[in-house]
Amino acid sequence: MRDVEFPEVPRPDEQARRQAVARQESLTKPVGSLGRLEELGVWIAACQGTCPTRPFARPRLVVFAADHGVAANGVSAYPPEVTAQMVTNLLTGGAAANVAAANAGVGVRVADIAVDADTPGPIAGHKVRRGSGVIGREDALTEAEVVAAVQAGRTIADEEVDGGADLLVVGDMGIANTTVAATLAAALTGIEPVAAVGRGSGVDDRGWMRKTTSIRDALRRGRPVAHDPLNLLRVSGGADVAALTGFLAQAAVRRTPVVLDGLLTGVAALLAEDLAPGAARWWVAGHRSAEPAHDAVLRQLGKEPLVDLGLRLGEGTGALAALPLLTLAGRALGEMATYEEAGVSGP
Amino acid sequence: MRDVEFPEVPRPDEQARRQAVARQESLTKPVGSLGRLEELGVWIAACQGTCPTRPFARPRLVVFAADHGVAANGVSAYPPEVTAQMVTNLLTGGAAANVAAANAGVGVRVADIAVDADTPGPIAGHKVRRGSGVIGREDALTEAEVVAAVQAGRTIADEEVDGGADLLVVGDMGIANTTVAATLAAALTGIEPVAAVGRGSGVDDRGWMRKTTSIRDALRRGRPVAHDPLNLLRVSGGADVAALTGFLAQAAVRRTPVVLDGLLTGVAALLAEDLAPGAARWWVAGHRSAEPAHDAVLRQLGKEPLVDLGLRLGEGTGALAALPLLTLAGRALGEMATYEEAGVSGP
Repeated sequence: MRDVEFPEVPRPDEQARRQAVARQESLTKPVGSLGRLEELGVWIAACQGTCPTRPFARPRLVVFAADHGVAANGVSAYPPEVTAQMVTNLLTGGAAANVAAANAGVGVRVADIAVDADTPGPIAGHKVRRGSGVIGREDALTEAEVVAAVQAGRTIADEEVDGGADLLVVGDMGIANTTVAATLAAALTGIEPVAAVGRGSGVDDRGWMRKTTSIRDALRRGRPVAHDPLNLLRVSGGADVAALTGFLAQAAVRRTPVVLDGLLTGVAALLAEDLAPGAARWWVAGHRSAEPAHDAVLRQLGKEPLVDLGLRLGEGTGALAALPLLTLAGRALGEMATYEEAGVSGP
Repeated sequence: MRDVEFPEVPRPDEQARRQAVARQESLTKPVGSLGRLEELGVWIAACQGTCPTRPFARPRLVVFAADHGVAANGVSAYPPEVTAQMVTNLLTGGAAANVAAANAGVGVRVADIAVDADTPGPIAGHKVRRGSGVIGREDALTEAEVVAAVQAGRTIADEEVDGGADLLVVGDMGIANTTVAATLAAALTGIEPVAAVGRGSGVDDRGWMRKTTSIRDALRRGRPVAHDPLNLLRVSGGADVAALTGFLAQAAVRRTPVVLDGLLTGVAALLAEDLAPGAARWWVAGHRSAEPAHDAVLRQLGKEPLVDLGLRLGEGTGALAALPLLTLAGRALGEMATYEEAGVSGP
């Protein structure tokens, strides 16, 4: 699949990073006393290429929505039609992500990548197909669909950055998508199905057994191609994960920082870092999900999440919950007085 | 000290709590998928006595500023005059707390309880004294000063609630105040000085030894009265801790939820719960501080903090960093669509 090639990923700006480290020491607080927020502030300065930092002018959430063939195995507490219903709920502002986005001052975009229903034109412009193959017994996508989905994600990232987005937040929504994500997480990190499987949307014990079996079957087909991101997406993935992979890589190419959400976006991040090495420098992990495979994914990404509150909702909600910490980190570096300005004696 | 008596503390509203638990199950998300945020939403409903929850209309930070005699022992990286300088910085908007408060939509009040300098009239109205005794060899306060400081905190809480505050955030600022707080934490939780001592504002190794010695000496005088909150405040405390104790107890009496900050506010919380049993039901722990004694305090309070980012700045910054999680929890419960409203199929 040579159609998918990313240019070299730029590094966050080293000069701005150094200026930010120095500025942290000049602000009216004991050095290091804002802990992780000081590191975050430095990272924001490096991503923005400027110090003091600027407030984020246009943070944007993109929720990648898709159905998955494996839902037919009864791996979710919800019927498949809920994916399309939740697209409508997101568009009309009633979903958790809408409230979390409003709370964090973030604009919301929904992208239908593979919902198994008709959705309104403006959100279906990058739709690749409806649903996906049942990954325990057939490929999720064709090769052409993988390429189209990655390209869809790239295009969406370009559209957002061209539209002025200076901070991107990613989310996912679709019945059975944690079955797909757990399969990919197991393939990429080497953990066993029983360690990767979670309750997802709250499946009961019998559903949990069906989900574990589905992951085991899918993993049998996926493990042989686990070293090859695009083939893994084709065999065991879905158009949503592929689009997120393209989106995350392209955001880095466009020098735009991203807040990751839970398991599915973390899996896409692992794949994107493989396709576009160095992209991970442009991402921060918003939260640690209650999905057990997420921890292994975060460790492999080398990312320590900002919050750990037992969330397992998706839609970008964990990233949005953490977002005010990011804005605070940036604003502290940008807006606090220095010792000199405030006339405060230093240590 | 019979002058300090609190009326019985009311419980958060049980009917609203039950309605909130039921409402969580009706919202368009898998039950429990917002994790800790769902519990927080329920707590907010119970505190407000209404479900759905209302947005917080007037959240307010009160920073209790004071000097401490023990600063003369060289326990801080900063000279004592920094307390008064930082009061000015807080009043002119350059401190970390100002930025964190703006980021969270919170109004800021500074209360000079015992700053060893003249401060502007409006913030000095509840001043009890200048500084405090050197707690390793003399009492921190007189009996009358303890009563006056607790009463000052009560009055400030009343003023804030009467002024419309519906969520309170507490902070502290003052050179050497972590030496006092670590002493009180050791007295109240039974941990040893060497386990309680932290770097505070970033004291060096020699200062750390002086700080540990100061805590050990102070603890020798404080431990015999550790079971008696007001006498402990008199012997080993300070007017800021005493005022915070009164403030936290009175906030609960006035049915107003509070977000706790780090070590010093946590110690005041332990004392306030002793003076006004049940008050702790009205508080949430904002963060886990990098100060080592804070963890023991949180465990004794039975509070799991919302964020854990290595902060050790004080001023309420840890509580303010966590505040958007609280507003999100309340808004999710209040603003998300139900399955019925959104036409989404349930599990």
